[in-house]
Amino acid sequence: MDLLDSIRSRMEELERELIGRLKSRVPVAFEIGSHIMNSGGKRIRPHLAIISARMGGYTGPDAVKLSGAIECIHTATLLHDDVVDKADTRRGQPSANSLWSNEMCVLGGDFILAKAFSALTSIGNIRILEIISRATERLSEGELFQMMNIGNMDITEEDYIRIITDKTAVLMEAACRGGAILGGLGQDQEDALAAFGFGLGIAFQMTDDVIDYRSEKATMGKEPGKDIAEGKLTLPLINALKKSNDMERERISQIIRDKRVSAEELLWIKGLLERQGGIQETLEKSRSYLNDAVKHLALFSDSEEKAALKRLAERILHRTY
Amino acid sequence: MDLLDSIRSRMEELERELIGRLKSRVPVAFEIGSHIMNSGGKRIRPHLAIISARMGGYTGPDAVKLSGAIECIHTATLLHDDVVDKADTRRGQPSANSLWSNEMCVLGGDFILAKAFSALTSIGNIRILEIISRATERLSEGELFQMMNIGNMDITEEDYIRIITDKTAVLMEAACRGGAILGGLGQDQEDALAAFGFGLGIAFQMTDDVIDYRSEKATMGKEPGKDIAEGKLTLPLINALKKSNDMERERISQIIRDKRVSAEELLWIKGLLERQGGIQETLEKSRSYLNDAVKHLALFSDSEEKAALKRLAERILHRTY
Repeated sequence: MDLLDSIRSRMEELERELIGRLKSRVPVAFEIGSHIMNSGGKRIRPHLAIISARMGGYTGPDAVKLSGAIECIHTATLLHDDVVDKADTRRGQPSANSLWSNEMCVLGGDFILAKAFSALTSIGNIRILEIISRATERLSEGELFQMMNIGNMDITEEDYIRIITDKTAVLMEAACRGGAILGGLGQDQEDALAAFGFGLGIAFQMTDDVIDYRSEKATMGKEPGKDIAEGKLTLPLINALKKSNDMERERISQIIRDKRVSAEELLWIKGLLERQGGIQETLEKSRSYLNDAVKHLALFSDSEEKAALKRLAERILHRTY
Repeated sequence: MDLLDSIRSRMEELERELIGRLKSRVPVAFEIGSHIMNSGGKRIRPHLAIISARMGGYTGPDAVKLSGAIECIHTATLLHDDVVDKADTRRGQPSANSLWSNEMCVLGGDFILAKAFSALTSIGNIRILEIISRATERLSEGELFQMMNIGNMDITEEDYIRIITDKTAVLMEAACRGGAILGGLGQDQEDALAAFGFGLGIAFQMTDDVIDYRSEKATMGKEPGKDIAEGKLTLPLINALKKSNDMERERISQIIRDKRVSAEELLWIKGLLERQGGIQETLEKSRSYLNDAVKHLALFSDSEEKAALKRLAERILHRTY
């Protein structure tokens, strides 16, 4: 049975909620919002929120609202990321900022963010609002810290973890905690679900950063080597650099200064990352975070929902294994 | 006695709140935020919120939080506006996006916006959250609608009113309504203060749009003719175009297509606007909105606070008269 099966009806409701929520008297606001909303996101955060709420027996409409709000926040940051990264594509489709101007996308992102807070407000739970607004702060802090480290060859693993914590893990943690609150779970179980979401987020981002070096555009809809071309040093490269000689470091440094990577260079880097174990170490670390994440679910007795969360964790591994 | 006198202590508190609120583990987030916060804003929205709360006898800390949040939202939109408009200066100082990259300013604005919602959440009043998040939606809708009309020579007065309603009046209305809620005022008085803030906002934006044609850079810190160079047709020009002949229309259309205005052209446009009454009509309309705004205060008996709101309205007139 597929993970989606148990909550599919909720996901259809979510899609309606997302698109309905973005209605605006200003057509372009709706067009930008629905374009990026419909561009094939995996809806991981909504899954986390809806399943977490169900872990406490809650199946009401607020879980859909919460999910919609969190997906909106995530989507708004994607829009602003694409502006920041000057991306041409997103998930294999033309990016919003290639269809509309960067300026429109900045304002469109603000619109989606405001819609998210309206949706959250309509749930009427101050604790959930606290958690999500704090997570949104950290999201932008993570993006800013990442940008400060563009081209920084000396970035450490600790810096990298801090970046992905803020830009990815904290919102997944918040999705689980928000759902748990809706489910009326006790503090221990709420904390356990939050820890699960956090670990899942770290693992997800690590595998995402591996995919950046492994993907073929045709299959993944992602341009391989995008991170290094943008001067973003992620864990596979950070790991490999530790074991690289001066010549290798200098070649990588040159690519980063040039802000582009040729097919030949990318092939060389991929070889280096495999040879030095940069990819392997990252995948092992990702697996370790996932295993720890799943351990937090031991607090719950077996259920369809618990099984769904475990399958979600496995799926994240299988994106690359 | 100056308007500020009666609430000066609150404003000092506000400045501390604003700067304190923007603290971040990521130094650049704080630096961007505090740069734009310290660049000499008039703090009209905070005044409105604090005085409105005092109209109901409330002088506690939540009025400062509300004010800080609203000023943050306003400031975040200024940051994103400067990115959108590619502005070099803001209030006579270098704009944030001339000191940091556009990308940093996009993310910095997101950070400030998230901080605003955290501050609002900490007040713990769902109605206030509803009002402010809805106002924030409309703010970005107004900015988007304005952008859709860049270079549109056929923009109507109705379109213009809709733009300034969303981008300026609604947040001033929300500041007053939010303060009124903190003050525990009844629905009639809350609505009256909201209507006051709304009218003040419309009048404020109209005079601001007049200043764009009247200011000297040295005194106002604003580059005159910025709006037309950006293709934004505001009420003075919309009014004047109605009475212009084909040659005049064509010359204006050419300036808008060129996206820049020479000193000579600006002088000619200013002359046209004065001659055709575009400036005068705008100022009269602004005065009329202000008069209507002040009438809503009749619901309140005389007080230091009511006098302060009236002085605030007068000040808006005297920016240009």
